[in-house]
Amino acid sequence: MFENEVIKEIIEKYRVLWAIEHALSLMSWDTETYMPKAAASDRGIAAAELNLLSRKIMLSDEFTSLVDKAEKQEGLNDYEKGVVRVLKRAIRIYKAIPPKLLEELVKTTTKARIVWREAKEKDDYAMFKDYLDKIVKLCREIAEHLGYDEHPYDALLDLHEEGLRTRDVDNIFNAITSDIKSILDKVLSEGYYPREHPLERVKYDIKAMESVNREILDILGYPKDRARLDVSAHPFTIGMSIYDVRITTRYEGYDFKRSLFSVIHEFGHALYDLQIDPAISKTPIGSGVSLGVHESQSRFWENIIGRSREFTNAIYDILRKHLEFLKDYDVEEVYRYFNCVKPSFIRTEADEVTYNLHILLRFKLEKLMIAGEVKVEELPELWNNTMDELLGIKPSTYREGILQDIHWSMGNIGYFPTYTIGNILSAQIAYHADRDLGGLKNLVSVLKLEPIREYLKEKIHRWGSTYEPKELIRRSFGEDINPRYFIEYLKSKFLSR
Amino acid sequence: MFENEVIKEIIEKYRVLWAIEHALSLMSWDTETYMPKAAASDRGIAAAELNLLSRKIMLSDEFTSLVDKAEKQEGLNDYEKGVVRVLKRAIRIYKAIPPKLLEELVKTTTKARIVWREAKEKDDYAMFKDYLDKIVKLCREIAEHLGYDEHPYDALLDLHEEGLRTRDVDNIFNAITSDIKSILDKVLSEGYYPREHPLERVKYDIKAMESVNREILDILGYPKDRARLDVSAHPFTIGMSIYDVRITTRYEGYDFKRSLFSVIHEFGHALYDLQIDPAISKTPIGSGVSLGVHESQSRFWENIIGRSREFTNAIYDILRKHLEFLKDYDVEEVYRYFNCVKPSFIRTEADEVTYNLHILLRFKLEKLMIAGEVKVEELPELWNNTMDELLGIKPSTYREGILQDIHWSMGNIGYFPTYTIGNILSAQIAYHADRDLGGLKNLVSVLKLEPIREYLKEKIHRWGSTYEPKELIRRSFGEDINPRYFIEYLKSKFLSR
Repeated sequence: MFENEVIKEIIEKYRVLWAIEHALSLMSWDTETYMPKAAASDRGIAAAELNLLSRKIMLSDEFTSLVDKAEKQEGLNDYEKGVVRVLKRAIRIYKAIPPKLLEELVKTTTKARIVWREAKEKDDYAMFKDYLDKIVKLCREIAEHLGYDEHPYDALLDLHEEGLRTRDVDNIFNAITSDIKSILDKVLSEGYYPREHPLERVKYDIKAMESVNREILDILGYPKDRARLDVSAHPFTIGMSIYDVRITTRYEGYDFKRSLFSVIHEFGHALYDLQIDPAISKTPIGSGVSLGVHESQSRFWENIIGRSREFTNAIYDILRKHLEFLKDYDVEEVYRYFNCVKPSFIRTEADEVTYNLHILLRFKLEKLMIAGEVKVEELPELWNNTMDELLGIKPSTYREGILQDIHWSMGNIGYFPTYTIGNILSAQIAYHADRDLGGLKNLVSVLKLEPIREYLKEKIHRWGSTYEPKELIRRSFGEDINPRYFIEYLKSKFLSR
Repeated sequence: MFENEVIKEIIEKYRVLWAIEHALSLMSWDTETYMPKAAASDRGIAAAELNLLSRKIMLSDEFTSLVDKAEKQEGLNDYEKGVVRVLKRAIRIYKAIPPKLLEELVKTTTKARIVWREAKEKDDYAMFKDYLDKIVKLCREIAEHLGYDEHPYDALLDLHEEGLRTRDVDNIFNAITSDIKSILDKVLSEGYYPREHPLERVKYDIKAMESVNREILDILGYPKDRARLDVSAHPFTIGMSIYDVRITTRYEGYDFKRSLFSVIHEFGHALYDLQIDPAISKTPIGSGVSLGVHESQSRFWENIIGRSREFTNAIYDILRKHLEFLKDYDVEEVYRYFNCVKPSFIRTEADEVTYNLHILLRFKLEKLMIAGEVKVEELPELWNNTMDELLGIKPSTYREGILQDIHWSMGNIGYFPTYTIGNILSAQIAYHADRDLGGLKNLVSVLKLEPIREYLKEKIHRWGSTYEPKELIRRSFGEDINPRYFIEYLKSKFLSR
């Protein structure tokens, strides 16, 4: 795997950076799950110190000169080239952003997160807008430092998804938006997939739901000796090593699909982390390659497998066993409940058909924000009008509109498009898996999921960050990322029963 | 608090070491509580990397020269002097032990721990003895590197308890051993405190016992927003910051006092960590000063408060409420159950009267081992004969004898005496608290524990490691550590009802 002596030395030296990352991941998991409330401030200080330390080690002459030396080596294999690529990229980003600027962003976003939460609660955009303005300006500055060819937003996209450009995202949305709208119109007019479902209001027993989740995870192949399921306010996945991957869910006490699909979603992320080649673990290429590719894995399991008719059929008895109220609902009803479709205000609750329109809305606004072509005062109206244009509805509160997401308050501008990359890719991967495995539906019907896990391992997971996202897809599927598969998937699922 | 500019710079630079320590503590807590099994090896690698990194930062020219500079400053206040003392000590120890030697010890003990576990299970001393031999030799080498005036064991004692010497421990045992033996004889012949109690065999419901523990912690004043109670194979306390202190217990399902008193014991440790002056937290003096002083706090709450007649009376109703089987036992019976006294083989199960004799046994052997005056082959017999001499009983298995403790397999030679320091100190502190607070019993009877917590905070906790142990006691109580208080305590509790 690693034969070049310089690369070997890098891997050796990198281990302490991996250890710091390992510690930071555990700290982050703990913060959201078990940490006593009063500990937040000290935890923040510790994390900031470790992040600084990691940056310092990475940017030390000792380390960077080794990476420079590695770049000049001849005959590196793909793994070795991946190590150089990943480290050059990390060093480039670290070096480009002046520490003072980063510090200001951290300070601003730390406050902004708290203000955002209160602003959302009080439905008061005025409270938040100056923070947003500052954050946009800082992100623009960061973009200038990072550099870009065509659009400053390119720099921010690349920060969240290696190699992704504004032009790519434009192309994707150009290819799918009108089709999505017409699919949505048809689904709504046909009415088989309901806008809402009585099960959304049915309460469940939390213990019972936990049993459902655990049984579903067993079926999916979540390995107990290497993984955990805990509870947190917002579901997430953290992989500390390929032998320690943890997901969380939440139990709101009603509308059980929310907990169920969050678990299946996070399982998808977790499986990626669990199936990385052990030989590259603890190295610079030992984690998932990007947010978008990661999201393709979670969406694959959540939507393409999890919300399918075959999977619903296959798990119906388990659901019935634990959730007594399902006696009044047959499997067909549960399938329809899993697949309600309607234009709605909140992105995180959006269905498969409308979800990407929520992203398009944010993408449009972010481009303008970063280009300095819209004032923060104008954003709420622009949000509402764009929502109306894309989904035919207008929020009447900020809470259901521009204040709904945490991302901007955290300085994550350029993050949202990775969700659409994930959705698009999940369908493309499903197409190939279906062909190569002789029918996904056959496997899912009998819950024979191992070949699917193995396929994903071979095509995506095992490689970690060896190849950059576009290259990985090209190598594994012999073609570029192509949004048509997603449209075909939507049509086949929602229009041709 | 910190006014000297050099000290301020040290504290600033120290913060990253604190952060690494914070991370290591969380990792250690997680390893014993929630970590998936398969993650152990990677966790070990991460911890080793962080320990090495910490050592590297501490021994960097940048840091050590700053500490040297600080040492030469004039007019330092006590806190500032404490910072210099603690760091000089840490640097001295780091520097004295050659990395190769430390590495060999880590390697040896990593294996030895596993072998010890198996040897204990199989009751096979032969399996373990060569490891013990190696560990003793390595510890002796470490002692040579650390240096000592009178006995090589001094160096190891000091490593575990700053300033403690073989001579001090000799003096303590000379002062208490014959008294303990005669107290033990009397208690046994009087028979009020039973050798064993039927409640030791009664099973309990784990949920019910957990409720007991939580209610007791509330009474003791364990702050929920800054602390946790979890479950682990062996109870422990870890303080990550003064806002995040965590204890664990275990539920064996019978003999409920084992879980109860482990919780009260760990609470004592936790309270120390929780009550350190916030102004010195995250600094080199921001943690408990030594194992012995820490143990004095756990023993104070476990034995002097927890096993007292007054506390038993005060919590009896709570116990009754949760533990149904107690309806057959009145409060007097529960008090006697809490205070069984008998010579027994296992240190961790020993009562207040006999406990220190178990330590004396180990102290005698360790001195000989480190001096090279006994061969590992001779140790079991020596153990058994010394046990017979001190407690009048002879174990018939290694498991109940020389193989019972994990300490030696971990290279912790010189650790055991800190337990006796803790016991001795707990009685001395109790004497002063009783006098200064106008009677501990009055407070405990009505569970008015806040004045006691405040007293411990003022006398011990708030200072962290500002003063070395002997100095702390001298300043807080106007006298040296004095073992007579412990004997008086035993007499008053066990002989004069």
